[in-house]
Amino acid sequence: MLSTTARTVLNRSKDRARADREDLYAVLDAGLICHLGVVVNGAPMVIPTGYGRLDDTLYLHGSTGATSLRHAGEVCVTVTHLDGVVLARSVFHHSVNYRSAMIYGTARRVEDPDEHLAGLRAVTEQLAPGQWDATRLPTKKELAQTAVLALSLEEASVKVRQGPPVDDEEDYDTPVWAGVLPLTVSWGTPQPDPRLRPDITVPPHIAYR
Amino acid sequence: MLSTTARTVLNRSKDRARADREDLYAVLDAGLICHLGVVVNGAPMVIPTGYGRLDDTLYLHGSTGATSLRHAGEVCVTVTHLDGVVLARSVFHHSVNYRSAMIYGTARRVEDPDEHLAGLRAVTEQLAPGQWDATRLPTKKELAQTAVLALSLEEASVKVRQGPPVDDEEDYDTPVWAGVLPLTVSWGTPQPDPRLRPDITVPPHIAYR
Repeated sequence: MLSTTARTVLNRSKDRARADREDLYAVLDAGLICHLGVVVNGAPMVIPTGYGRLDDTLYLHGSTGATSLRHAGEVCVTVTHLDGVVLARSVFHHSVNYRSAMIYGTARRVEDPDEHLAGLRAVTEQLAPGQWDATRLPTKKELAQTAVLALSLEEASVKVRQGPPVDDEEDYDTPVWAGVLPLTVSWGTPQPDPRLRPDITVPPHIAYR
Repeated sequence: MLSTTARTVLNRSKDRARADREDLYAVLDAGLICHLGVVVNGAPMVIPTGYGRLDDTLYLHGSTGATSLRHAGEVCVTVTHLDGVVLARSVFHHSVNYRSAMIYGTARRVEDPDEHLAGLRAVTEQLAPGQWDATRLPTKKELAQTAVLALSLEEASVKVRQGPPVDDEEDYDTPVWAGVLPLTVSWGTPQPDPRLRPDITVPPHIAYR
């Protein structure tokens, strides 16, 4: 089950809340980037960035010089999938279909070399599965330039909205089209680097997408 | 030109920065949702939500009871388009192609009835162009339930990365596939509400997508 802290229990649209840890994993595992929120000099900052999950820990990475990472104490990480636009018969009931997860907590800077590497691997594999084993691994110098943050998935909420619009009863008979415009994210054909060696073809772990 | 405040000037990857106001408009106008960052009891909160732009003002809306809106003083709004995953010959140089905009400022709660309506229209039209004129407009009661925030686009930054991986020179000759896996977001076939009146067909402003 997911946490029931003040900030993870929904005040409104309670029917959109999901309580199972599996729902959280599903939203996170299907994503490519998250939006990381930190507080810098009292003001919020929201940065799109990669992430990866290992069991109940989320890993984030970035340059050791990044403002967002240097200020990452209390954070909020949000992953959102937009699945469609919900067109209602009234402006008021327009909505979107989505799956989203919000994770709150204090990010921990990873110092242990093994966890540092495992965290980087998780982030890399989330974005590009199979690439960790297919490409040159980080050198000591590269590792030293890359900070890894760990965030527990203990305090998290998941919201999901799917399905048709919900209009006011008296509006259903009006002559207005209503329904859902689905949105899908899809992979295109792999575009080889212009400097790619001509003898190298797209490997299966990339081609399958 | 865009602002050059401490938080909108890039410290790293300066070549990804865009300085023109038109670049900001392009990123915002192509988006469907943003991630709104606020500070609640000293901790960050990042909420996916709709938005709209009118000239140099961004409008956001939400329930008058929403925590995020009640705490919206200093905010950061981020809009991100993920265009592809950049597969390099080394783990370290993996990246993503993207276009993103970050806007910082103090959100103003809109009180003027005309601006309130104009802001709601902008938010609706961003997500569903043509729907404002096609559907039932908000009642007084609905308007009273909907808060609108205005945020100046004065302090903003835009980052764009496109193109192939940039590997270390000594890695180019390794037998590793490198290039870009493009990502596209596309609209599917409109799904009619099961309760749609059978005589109503998809109107052109929806079908064109």
